[in-house]
Amino acid sequence: MLNKQENESNDAQSNDVACITLAHGSGGKAMRDLVENEIVSAFANEYLTPLEDQARLPLSAMNSLGDRLAMTTDSFVVDPLEFPGGDIGTLAVNGTVNDLAMSGATPLYLTCGLILEEGLPLDTLRRILSSMKRAADLAGVTIVSGDTKVVHRGAADKIFINTSGIGVIPKHLEINANAAQDGDVVIVNGWVGDHGATIMAERGELQLDADLYSDCRPLHREVNALLAHCPDVHCLRDATRGGLATVLTEFAESSNVKIVLDQAAIPVRDEVRGVCELLGLDPLYLANEGKFVAIVPAKHAQAAVNALRKLPGAEQASVIGHVESTETLGTYVGVSLKTTFGSERMIDMLIGAQLPRIC
Amino acid sequence: MLNKQENESNDAQSNDVACITLAHGSGGKAMRDLVENEIVSAFANEYLTPLEDQARLPLSAMNSLGDRLAMTTDSFVVDPLEFPGGDIGTLAVNGTVNDLAMSGATPLYLTCGLILEEGLPLDTLRRILSSMKRAADLAGVTIVSGDTKVVHRGAADKIFINTSGIGVIPKHLEINANAAQDGDVVIVNGWVGDHGATIMAERGELQLDADLYSDCRPLHREVNALLAHCPDVHCLRDATRGGLATVLTEFAESSNVKIVLDQAAIPVRDEVRGVCELLGLDPLYLANEGKFVAIVPAKHAQAAVNALRKLPGAEQASVIGHVESTETLGTYVGVSLKTTFGSERMIDMLIGAQLPRIC
Repeated sequence: MLNKQENESNDAQSNDVACITLAHGSGGKAMRDLVENEIVSAFANEYLTPLEDQARLPLSAMNSLGDRLAMTTDSFVVDPLEFPGGDIGTLAVNGTVNDLAMSGATPLYLTCGLILEEGLPLDTLRRILSSMKRAADLAGVTIVSGDTKVVHRGAADKIFINTSGIGVIPKHLEINANAAQDGDVVIVNGWVGDHGATIMAERGELQLDADLYSDCRPLHREVNALLAHCPDVHCLRDATRGGLATVLTEFAESSNVKIVLDQAAIPVRDEVRGVCELLGLDPLYLANEGKFVAIVPAKHAQAAVNALRKLPGAEQASVIGHVESTETLGTYVGVSLKTTFGSERMIDMLIGAQLPRIC
Repeated sequence: MLNKQENESNDAQSNDVACITLAHGSGGKAMRDLVENEIVSAFANEYLTPLEDQARLPLSAMNSLGDRLAMTTDSFVVDPLEFPGGDIGTLAVNGTVNDLAMSGATPLYLTCGLILEEGLPLDTLRRILSSMKRAADLAGVTIVSGDTKVVHRGAADKIFINTSGIGVIPKHLEINANAAQDGDVVIVNGWVGDHGATIMAERGELQLDADLYSDCRPLHREVNALLAHCPDVHCLRDATRGGLATVLTEFAESSNVKIVLDQAAIPVRDEVRGVCELLGLDPLYLANEGKFVAIVPAKHAQAAVNALRKLPGAEQASVIGHVESTETLGTYVGVSLKTTFGSERMIDMLIGAQLPRIC
């Protein structure tokens, strides 16, 4: 009986070499083999490897870092899966690391939920898992728990990844979207719009030949540099879907202020500007995966920008605008842009869809 | 200009009354409206409502409950979305609550990651969110962070939900799959196979007319009752995908023991037995969403079963088997079943797929 089962198992494996099958989601032997041989082995660490239903993490280590846990979740459905500068795996790790980092937290532990479409090549899955592991190592986080589901061909598009994460926020640190004040200035940590322009160019139908790369990377070290020179950061958020315009609109509305941007100061690569002009897009709405927008007291801004510029990837960090009170009658709560031509125009959130499945 | 935008926004809303559109995933205004008016309002609580990129949770409250954090993740792709006894929302909350509870942890906080297919009726989404909220309240957990993505029609099947969760494990509690010992007994907390049989019957093509309900519910209170009467539980896991057979095989292999089940003692409803006989299935492989399997020292078993039987839903809690040493030469490491006819047969994990998308 044992021999018969071993044979069946081998047969199943030889059919499964190339692609994910429904058996990989069944809860049976094929699933266990996939989980142990591909996923756990890719991420191997003391928390994940015991394969219990839950990771068990010492609270003592967390208490030494601060007094509050930051917790966040993000699902990734980017199309295409792989693009210059990253893939869905690097995106999934860095996206959640950055959502934690925006509270000033030290990112610590991530979970990985995979939804796989029947027929996904195993080699694609392996490349993505190995990107996740590299990104986690680079960000200093550990993937401690996971789950894998398989759906029929046509019921998902190749692979969707959810990452959830926790980190610890240092004592006394309070960064909130509603804390922008009259006189504050706006800082961005580098080139704007790289990720959105890259995905757009990669979609293929545009036949663009631009030299574009996603800016996907972890931001908590840059946040630490910012906080070292500016301990009272008022607002901080990464400018992903919806771009700078959306984040700044959220800050302005939550804080009941006007934010005035200086178009000439916003760093946009020539290649990204080119894609935008070609397609009639505004770089302020393009998604970023390695950019934050900070609103800080003016007195600390230059020191913070100088510190950021010394970090690889943040060489173009800049002050790009300032905050005004809305106490004066008739002042607009929201974001306005002083254009390079000297005019001023209002910036609002997108009404419809600019680009689905950007992350 | 403001007026024009408001009109556009209203137009977008009137088009969006019935269904999810790609604009709901754009990062723009339609997405914010969906998140604020449907999702945050469904779950409203002090952690989620500020709509920061991460929830911020006090560590002090966690420290008072134990010394380790339990962390887990699960994605849900069940088909059909709604079934007797629950829906994908109840499943998503209870599944993660139960994965936490199996370490003995008090479940505390959940995240909710939604992947929505363009065209999903808003009413369906509302029903599912309201199920999640009810299930979270019933389990005493709070949904503190969320994310929503929308994909094109045909790139997902209506809705997939990821829930990740954390809880706190009391000091000195150590429950592990590798801790089963010679002489231990096996406890299950009630009827076996209800969820799997229900989904199978609901798939429609079988035209079954059985009176079946999913057993989907939170288990941490039953785990507490078990631990109160049996503080040294050796192994504990909920028997979801792959059923009792898979969990017990994992225990046997991790602990290097033989587990002998008494078929006559395993509680299976007549309706479930009927579906199994009709389809040639074994209830031991059917998924459960409200059943755990515990391996405990024999001396505590009866007291634990008696305590469980007093809890609603666990009236059929039973001792269903025992653990034997494999030191005797030739003893099988794994699970065997003493049938009602007096014979004994080996039980192994499933090789292929029994039923995809059961959870």
